[in-house]
Amino acid sequence: MSRYDSIKVGDKASFTKTITETDITLYGAVSGDFNPVHFNSVYAEKTMFKNRIAHGMLTAGLISAILGMQLPGPGTIYLSQSLSFRSPVFIGDTITAQVEVLEKEDEKKQIKLSTVCKNQNDKKVIVGEAIVMLKD
Amino acid sequence: MSRYDSIKVGDKASFTKTITETDITLYGAVSGDFNPVHFNSVYAEKTMFKNRIAHGMLTAGLISAILGMQLPGPGTIYLSQSLSFRSPVFIGDTITAQVEVLEKEDEKKQIKLSTVCKNQNDKKVIVGEAIVMLKD
Repeated sequence: MSRYDSIKVGDKASFTKTITETDITLYGAVSGDFNPVHFNSVYAEKTMFKNRIAHGMLTAGLISAILGMQLPGPGTIYLSQSLSFRSPVFIGDTITAQVEVLEKEDEKKQIKLSTVCKNQNDKKVIVGEAIVMLKD
Repeated sequence: MSRYDSIKVGDKASFTKTITETDITLYGAVSGDFNPVHFNSVYAEKTMFKNRIAHGMLTAGLISAILGMQLPGPGTIYLSQSLSFRSPVFIGDTITAQVEVLEKEDEKKQIKLSTVCKNQNDKKVIVGEAIVMLKD
Protein backbone atom coordinates (compact mmCIF):
# COMPACT_ATOMS: atom_id res chain seq x y z
CA MET A 1 0.00 0.00 0.00
CA SER A 2 1.34 3.42 -0.94
CA ARG A 3 1.81 6.06 1.74
CA TYR A 4 -0.94 8.07 0.07
CA ASP A 5 -3.34 5.11 0.32
CA SER A 6 -2.52 4.58 4.00
CA ILE A 7 -3.84 8.04 4.90
CA LYS A 8 -7.53 8.12 5.85
CA VAL A 9 -10.10 10.90 6.22
CA GLY A 10 -10.15 11.79 9.91
CA ASP A 11 -6.44 11.12 10.51
CA LYS A 12 -4.94 13.75 12.83
CA ALA A 13 -1.53 14.99 13.92
CA SER A 14 -0.24 17.80 16.09
CA PHE A 15 2.99 19.65 16.91
CA THR A 16 3.65 21.91 19.88
CA LYS A 17 6.34 24.57 20.18
CA THR A 18 6.99 27.56 22.42
CA ILE A 19 7.61 30.72 20.36
CA THR A 20 10.81 32.40 21.51
CA GLU A 21 12.27 35.81 20.89
CA THR A 22 15.02 34.08 18.93
CA ASP A 23 12.39 32.60 16.61
CA ILE A 24 11.09 36.10 15.90
CA THR A 25 14.59 37.43 15.24
CA LEU A 26 15.44 34.56 12.90
CA TYR A 27 12.10 34.85 11.12
CA GLY A 28 12.74 38.54 10.55
CA ALA A 29 16.13 37.73 9.04
CA VAL A 30 14.69 35.06 6.74
CA SER A 31 11.61 36.98 5.59
CA GLY A 32 12.85 40.55 5.72
CA ASP A 33 9.80 41.44 7.87
CA PHE A 34 11.01 43.80 10.60
CA ASN A 35 7.60 45.34 11.31
CA PRO A 36 8.11 47.04 14.70
CA VAL A 37 5.05 45.26 16.12
CA HIS A 38 7.38 42.24 16.20
CA PHE A 39 10.68 43.88 17.12
CA ASN A 40 10.24 47.08 19.09
CA SER A 41 8.68 46.81 22.55
CA VAL A 42 8.41 50.61 22.92
CA TYR A 43 6.45 50.77 19.67
CA ALA A 44 4.41 47.71 20.60
CA GLU A 45 3.26 49.21 23.91
CA LYS A 46 1.27 51.76 21.92
CA THR A 47 -0.52 49.16 19.80
CA MET A 48 -3.79 47.33 20.53
CA PHE A 49 -1.85 44.29 21.76
CA LYS A 50 0.43 46.24 24.17
CA ASN A 51 3.30 43.79 23.61
CA ARG A 52 5.45 42.53 20.76
CA ILE A 53 3.68 39.80 18.78
CA ALA A 54 5.08 36.97 16.69
CA HIS A 55 4.78 37.17 12.91
CA GLY A 56 1.56 35.40 11.87
CA MET A 57 3.48 33.55 9.19
CA LEU A 58 5.99 32.35 11.77
CA THR A 59 3.24 30.64 13.76
CA ALA A 60 1.77 29.32 10.51
CA GLY A 61 5.09 27.57 9.92
CA LEU A 62 4.15 25.03 12.59
CA ILE A 63 1.42 23.82 10.21
CA SER A 64 4.07 23.39 7.52
CA ALA A 65 6.12 21.39 10.04
CA ILE A 66 3.31 18.88 10.65
CA LEU A 67 2.56 18.50 6.95
CA GLY A 68 6.22 17.98 6.09
CA MET A 69 7.22 15.82 9.05
CA GLN A 70 4.15 13.87 10.20
CA LEU A 71 0.93 13.95 8.19
CA PRO A 72 1.31 13.32 5.29
CA GLY A 73 5.03 13.53 6.18
CA PRO A 74 8.34 13.60 4.26
CA GLY A 75 7.94 14.18 0.55
CA THR A 76 4.73 16.19 0.94
CA ILE A 77 4.35 18.94 -1.65
CA TYR A 78 2.41 21.98 -0.43
CA LEU A 79 -0.21 23.17 -2.91
CA SER A 80 -2.24 25.72 -0.97
CA GLN A 81 -2.94 27.13 2.47
CA SER A 82 -5.57 29.52 3.81
CA LEU A 83 -4.78 31.33 7.05
CA SER A 84 -7.07 33.39 9.26
CA PHE A 85 -5.08 35.06 12.05
CA ARG A 86 -7.59 35.15 14.92
CA SER A 87 -5.55 36.16 17.97
CA PRO A 88 -2.05 37.47 18.63
CA VAL A 89 0.85 35.20 19.62
CA PHE A 90 3.24 36.64 22.19
CA ILE A 91 6.81 35.69 23.03
CA GLY A 92 6.69 32.67 25.35
CA ASP A 93 3.31 31.42 24.12
CA THR A 94 3.19 27.67 23.55
CA ILE A 95 1.43 26.93 20.28
CA THR A 96 -0.09 23.61 19.28
CA ALA A 97 -0.74 23.18 15.58
CA GLN A 98 -3.26 20.48 14.66
CA VAL A 99 -4.20 19.09 11.28
CA GLU A 100 -6.97 16.67 10.29
CA VAL A 101 -7.56 15.02 6.93
CA LEU A 102 -10.85 16.30 5.47
CA GLU A 103 -10.87 14.91 1.92
CA LYS A 104 -8.75 12.94 -0.52
CA GLU A 105 -8.69 13.27 -4.30
CA ASP A 106 -7.21 9.98 -5.44
CA GLU A 107 -6.60 10.76 -9.13
CA LYS A 108 -4.41 13.73 -8.22
CA LYS A 109 -2.99 12.22 -5.00
CA GLN A 110 -4.14 15.37 -3.22
CA ILE A 111 -5.21 15.65 0.40
CA LYS A 112 -7.22 18.48 1.99
CA LEU A 113 -6.69 19.09 5.70
CA SER A 114 -8.07 21.44 8.33
CA THR A 115 -5.25 23.37 10.02
CA VAL A 116 -5.62 25.02 13.41
CA CYS A 117 -3.12 26.59 15.82
CA LYS A 118 -4.07 27.11 19.48
CA ASN A 119 -2.21 28.74 22.33
CA GLN A 120 -1.64 27.41 25.84
CA ASN A 121 -5.09 28.67 26.85
CA ASP A 122 -6.74 26.63 24.08
CA LYS A 123 -7.54 29.84 22.20
CA LYS A 124 -7.45 29.53 18.42
CA VAL A 125 -4.78 31.81 16.99
CA ILE A 126 -4.89 30.55 13.38
CA VAL A 127 -7.52 28.59 11.48
CA GLY A 128 -7.47 27.51 7.85
CA GLU A 129 -7.15 24.68 5.38
CA ALA A 130 -4.29 23.15 3.43
CA ILE A 131 -4.12 21.12 0.23
CA VAL A 132 -1.05 18.94 -0.27
CA MET A 133 0.10 16.29 -2.73
CA LEU A 134 1.86 13.04 -1.85
CA LYS A 135 3.21 11.18 -4.86
CA ASP A 136 4.43 8.01 -3.14
CA MET B 1 -4.93 62.43 7.05
CA SER B 2 -4.45 59.05 8.74
CA ARG B 3 -2.07 56.51 7.24
CA TYR B 4 -5.09 54.33 6.51
CA ASP B 5 -6.77 57.14 4.58
CA SER B 6 -3.64 57.81 2.54
CA ILE B 7 -3.75 54.31 1.05
CA LYS B 8 -5.66 54.04 -2.23
CA VAL B 9 -7.08 51.15 -4.24
CA GLY B 10 -4.46 50.34 -6.88
CA ASP B 11 -1.46 51.21 -4.69
CA LYS B 12 1.38 48.73 -5.23
CA ALA B 13 4.63 47.71 -3.55
CA SER B 14 7.24 45.03 -4.11
CA PHE B 15 10.20 43.38 -2.38
CA THR B 16 12.89 41.23 -3.98
CA LYS B 17 15.17 38.74 -2.22
CA THR B 18 17.35 35.83 -3.28
CA ILE B 19 16.51 32.67 -1.33
CA THR B 20 19.68 31.19 0.15
CA GLU B 21 20.48 27.83 1.70
CA THR B 22 20.93 29.68 5.00
CA ASP B 23 17.36 30.96 4.75
CA ILE B 24 16.13 27.37 4.41
CA THR B 25 18.21 26.22 7.38
CA LEU B 26 17.00 29.08 9.57
CA TYR B 27 13.40 28.58 8.49
CA GLY B 28 13.66 24.90 9.43
CA ALA B 29 14.94 25.87 12.87
CA VAL B 30 12.14 28.40 13.42
CA SER B 31 9.27 26.28 12.11
CA GLY B 32 10.42 22.77 12.96
CA ASP B 33 9.84 21.79 9.32
CA PHE B 34 12.76 19.56 8.28
CA ASN B 35 10.92 17.85 5.41
CA PRO B 36 13.78 16.26 3.40
CA VAL B 37 12.52 17.89 0.20
CA HIS B 38 14.05 21.05 1.72
CA PHE B 39 17.13 19.61 3.45
CA ASN B 40 18.38 16.43 1.80
CA SER B 41 19.69 16.69 -1.75
CA VAL B 42 19.99 12.90 -2.13
CA TYR B 43 16.32 12.55 -1.20
CA ALA B 44 15.35 15.53 -3.36
CA GLU B 45 16.97 14.04 -6.48
CA LYS B 46 14.30 11.33 -6.44
CA THR B 47 11.40 13.80 -6.27
CA MET B 48 9.49 15.45 -9.11
CA PHE B 49 11.57 18.61 -8.67
CA LYS B 50 14.99 16.83 -8.72
CA ASN B 51 16.49 19.44 -6.36
CA ARG B 52 15.92 20.75 -2.85
CA ILE B 53 13.13 23.33 -2.76
CA ALA B 54 12.48 26.18 -0.36
CA HIS B 55 9.61 25.90 2.11
CA GLY B 56 6.51 27.45 0.53
CA MET B 57 5.87 29.34 3.74
CA LEU B 58 9.40 30.75 3.65
CA THR B 59 8.77 32.34 0.28
CA ALA B 60 5.36 33.51 1.51
CA GLY B 61 7.20 35.43 4.23
CA LEU B 62 8.28 37.97 1.60
CA ILE B 63 4.61 38.97 1.35
CA SER B 64 4.55 39.50 5.10
CA ALA B 65 7.66 41.66 4.73
CA ILE B 66 5.97 44.02 2.26
CA LEU B 67 2.81 44.28 4.33
CA GLY B 68 4.76 44.99 7.52
CA MET B 69 7.43 47.23 6.06
CA GLN B 70 5.98 49.07 3.04
CA LEU B 71 2.28 48.76 2.21
CA PRO B 72 0.46 49.34 4.51
CA GLY B 73 3.76 49.35 6.50
CA PRO B 74 4.72 49.41 10.20
CA GLY B 75 1.86 48.73 12.57
CA THR B 76 -0.01 46.56 10.08
CA ILE B 77 -1.97 43.72 11.71
CA TYR B 78 -2.30 40.62 9.55
CA LEU B 79 -5.86 39.22 9.47
CA SER B 80 -5.77 36.62 6.74
CA GLN B 81 -3.77 35.25 3.83
CA SER B 82 -4.53 32.75 1.09
CA LEU B 83 -1.61 31.07 -0.63
CA SER B 84 -1.54 28.93 -3.76
CA PHE B 85 1.91 27.45 -4.29
CA ARG B 86 2.18 27.27 -8.08
CA SER B 87 5.82 26.44 -8.79
CA PRO B 88 8.84 25.35 -6.76
CA VAL B 89 11.46 27.79 -5.48
CA PHE B 90 15.04 26.55 -5.57
CA ILE B 91 18.12 27.72 -3.66
CA GLY B 92 19.49 30.79 -5.45
CA ASP B 93 16.17 31.81 -6.99
CA THR B 94 15.46 35.53 -6.77
CA ILE B 95 11.88 36.10 -5.71
CA THR B 96 9.91 39.30 -6.16
CA ALA B 97 6.82 39.62 -4.00
CA GLN B 98 4.23 42.15 -5.19
CA VAL B 99 1.10 43.41 -3.49
CA GLU B 100 -1.68 45.64 -4.80
CA VAL B 101 -4.55 47.18 -2.87
CA LEU B 102 -7.84 45.68 -4.13
CA GLU B 103 -10.42 46.99 -1.66
CA LYS B 104 -10.76 49.03 1.53
CA GLU B 105 -13.37 48.60 4.25
CA ASP B 106 -13.31 51.93 6.02
CA GLU B 107 -15.43 51.11 9.10
CA LYS B 108 -13.08 48.27 10.06
CA LYS B 109 -9.88 49.93 8.76
CA GLN B 110 -9.28 46.79 6.74
CA ILE B 111 -7.47 46.53 3.43
CA LYS B 112 -7.60 43.64 0.95
CA LEU B 113 -4.57 43.14 -1.29
CA SER B 114 -3.57 40.77 -4.06
CA THR B 115 -0.29 39.04 -3.23
CA VAL B 116 1.94 37.45 -5.86
CA CYS B 117 5.49 36.09 -5.77
CA LYS B 118 7.42 35.60 -9.02
CA ASN B 119 10.84 34.13 -9.68
CA GLN B 120 13.67 35.59 -11.79
CA ASN B 121 12.01 34.15 -14.93
CA ASP B 122 8.78 36.04 -14.18
CA LYS B 123 7.05 32.75 -13.34
CA LYS B 124 4.43 32.97 -10.60
CA VAL B 125 5.44 30.81 -7.65
CA ILE B 126 2.74 31.97 -5.20
CA VAL B 127 -0.57 33.74 -5.76
CA GLY B 128 -3.15 34.73 -3.19
CA GLU B 129 -4.82 37.52 -1.26
CA ALA B 130 -4.25 39.17 2.10
CA ILE B 131 -6.50 41.13 4.45
CA VAL B 132 -4.81 43.47 6.92
CA MET B 133 -5.89 46.11 9.41
CA LEU B 134 -4.20 49.47 9.94
CA LYS B 135 -5.44 51.32 13.01
CA ASP B 136 -3.55 54.59 12.56
